[in-house]
Amino acid sequence: MNAVSSHALTDQRALRRANLSNVLSVLRDGPRSRARLAEDLGLNKATVSSLVSELIERRLAREGSSERGSVGRPGTVIELDGEAVCGVAAEVNVNHVATLAVNLRGEVLSERRTSVAAAGQPPNDVLELLSGLLGDTLADVKAAGAAVTGIVVGVAGLVERNHGNLTIAPNLGWSDVPVSALLGDLLGAATADRPVPIEVHNEATLAVVAEARSAEPDERDIIVVHSEIGIGGGIFADGRRFDGARGYAGEFGHMVVDPSGRRCGCGRTGCWETTIGLNRLLELVAEPGDSLLAPALGLEERIAEIDRRAETGDDRTLAALDEIARWLARGAAILTNVLNPGAIVLGGYLALLGHRLLDVLVVELEAAVIAPDTGGTRVAISSLGFTASVHGGAVVALDRIFDDPTVVSRNDELGAIS
Amino acid sequence: MNAVSSHALTDQRALRRANLSNVLSVLRDGPRSRARLAEDLGLNKATVSSLVSELIERRLAREGSSERGSVGRPGTVIELDGEAVCGVAAEVNVNHVATLAVNLRGEVLSERRTSVAAAGQPPNDVLELLSGLLGDTLADVKAAGAAVTGIVVGVAGLVERNHGNLTIAPNLGWSDVPVSALLGDLLGAATADRPVPIEVHNEATLAVVAEARSAEPDERDIIVVHSEIGIGGGIFADGRRFDGARGYAGEFGHMVVDPSGRRCGCGRTGCWETTIGLNRLLELVAEPGDSLLAPALGLEERIAEIDRRAETGDDRTLAALDEIARWLARGAAILTNVLNPGAIVLGGYLALLGHRLLDVLVVELEAAVIAPDTGGTRVAISSLGFTASVHGGAVVALDRIFDDPTVVSRNDELGAIS
Repeated sequence: MNAVSSHALTDQRALRRANLSNVLSVLRDGPRSRARLAEDLGLNKATVSSLVSELIERRLAREGSSERGSVGRPGTVIELDGEAVCGVAAEVNVNHVATLAVNLRGEVLSERRTSVAAAGQPPNDVLELLSGLLGDTLADVKAAGAAVTGIVVGVAGLVERNHGNLTIAPNLGWSDVPVSALLGDLLGAATADRPVPIEVHNEATLAVVAEARSAEPDERDIIVVHSEIGIGGGIFADGRRFDGARGYAGEFGHMVVDPSGRRCGCGRTGCWETTIGLNRLLELVAEPGDSLLAPALGLEERIAEIDRRAETGDDRTLAALDEIARWLARGAAILTNVLNPGAIVLGGYLALLGHRLLDVLVVELEAAVIAPDTGGTRVAISSLGFTASVHGGAVVALDRIFDDPTVVSRNDELGAIS
Repeated sequence: MNAVSSHALTDQRALRRANLSNVLSVLRDGPRSRARLAEDLGLNKATVSSLVSELIERRLAREGSSERGSVGRPGTVIELDGEAVCGVAAEVNVNHVATLAVNLRGEVLSERRTSVAAAGQPPNDVLELLSGLLGDTLADVKAAGAAVTGIVVGVAGLVERNHGNLTIAPNLGWSDVPVSALLGDLLGAATADRPVPIEVHNEATLAVVAEARSAEPDERDIIVVHSEIGIGGGIFADGRRFDGARGYAGEFGHMVVDPSGRRCGCGRTGCWETTIGLNRLLELVAEPGDSLLAPALGLEERIAEIDRRAETGDDRTLAALDEIARWLARGAAILTNVLNPGAIVLGGYLALLGHRLLDVLVVELEAAVIAPDTGGTRVAISSLGFTASVHGGAVVALDRIFDDPTVVSRNDELGAIS
């Protein structure tokens, strides 16, 4: 074979992979007939039939029942299969470690979580705890007869993605931790029969991915405001993440909204984070010594207690939530004037307390946005709470299959992944 | 002919038009050999040769000399022709009316301008003045042997694009002016032999289009801050304008950057516009009664006088420019944290005074942006000044040809436009 035809063959294979990926990605939005797939993708029907056959052989798609809402004779539709492959996510956060396994159809195969005051603890101890959870989750996956595409670990800190290292995590008090390598060693036995790639990401970035998907699927231009101690975010334009020129877009927490305000952890003054970050809420809600601030209390328990106090009409709590909602509106108005999103999705603690914030937020946003009727921007509340990060990790792990369905082998071994 | 084959023929024509458009658009970035065009566009060489022949027949492209920088035997390159077609722009602003005609190669065929205190004058009087300028410009175009693709009018106000109406223009004191229809009537004689479509746009939006093009062409992710009395803007992602969900993106002027600041014309408090709009600069620079504020003085003359005073080291002027630069940096930092652009392009009066603002701006921006090294964001200064709007109008008028080269007829009449 000469160089030219080898090149041509490579192109053919790349084209086939891209087409398989496109078909599988369309199926993610719902079942489709072969004819509809051909139409949506601008491919001829013979090509689509061949692609679908290959996806069925790889157990990533299957024939389902009739197409919903179609008129006349019900045709055979193709739907996602993928019960035999799943993505695994893990999270290291200030208050907990957690894992999640989700198959290609979006079904949860395993969900595990342990509270731990990770801040200041040796990274090795915390990662050992996490590897225990991960071992259990991998066992759950095996028991369900599925194979793992990859493990995506979210860590609350700045991450060097290529080597899977944590560069610095101020809230954990960690720096320079080779998370991917350490976890690989700790998991040695559990993955001995088939090594699994381990990727490390920033946990807020993963949460934003999941929260964006939790928005109504017909809304393609959205922004996500993710909230824990820090405020992160993401911009999605026409359904795709907007990263900016060097990948730093979405640093909403460090917009200066109050130049004469409080000092931020970043050293600047009046960042949005200082007005709506979780620490600000706790400061507004509770005096030092309040049981709400007891170190043993988990994040969800704290939020649930604040919600309970608001329910009983506690003045201080209600005033605190109003204050948060007003500053939330100020930052959201800046983002709306700049980006005119179809929806602003609230994630993290703001989602858990969203029902207490929404009234004030909507009124203040309406008043602060220049476009008529707020330019059509709605406020949506993520339903994922503090599990957003592991859900996002599973999405990213499964993206490997959607990007290249041929990583799942055709042979009859259950969901073997190359 | 049955319905199916008619549909197929329509598709063929649409495909051909799209391919012609793609070839012409690539040539806008510089001359290319046929082989290079085929490679860049992923088309086979026979198709490209046929497309190029058609563009040459339509006098939109021509054979040029050898390809610059190529190695070995110089090949024939294809370059933009289009000397026979041009776009015409017109502008109605608070201090002036102006026109500009630019051919497809970007060469200016006519540029005219008249100072007029338009605010409060009857719209008819000002449009009559503009139609006089337009008539002269159309005569210049005819004398150059070129035909007009369309007239794009920029007006300093809110525009209803479909009917070419001005809805409201607070700074002109106008509302509900059917600009397109009125100008069409006034131009009757000048365009009697061939009616020309007249589109109406917001003038700041047009300015942003031109200022985005004035940035270095290799930078695809940029934001433009356009400044006159009001502050407008635009976001460009991968070279394409980012409009948001309903087209309201880019309202930078109404980001609240100073909640305890001054009242804005929009009724809110502390909008960016109140800190860096032209009126704020004049207020900082001059006492009431200062010759700088004389009503007879044009905008450029005012800016030139401020520049002159800064040159002589006038304390008040220098302090005013520092204050503007600091607030410019605060808003620019918000935009940079949110969008991480490759460049921020300053347009309007900020461009004319850019050399006086840049030092403070760059230092303050560096301090306020969370990404290391400002995330790679540079500050660029538009060279278009107050002519940006008409340059943008000409770009938009010519886009009609780049979008569909078949609007220029093939016959031997010079640049006939259908």
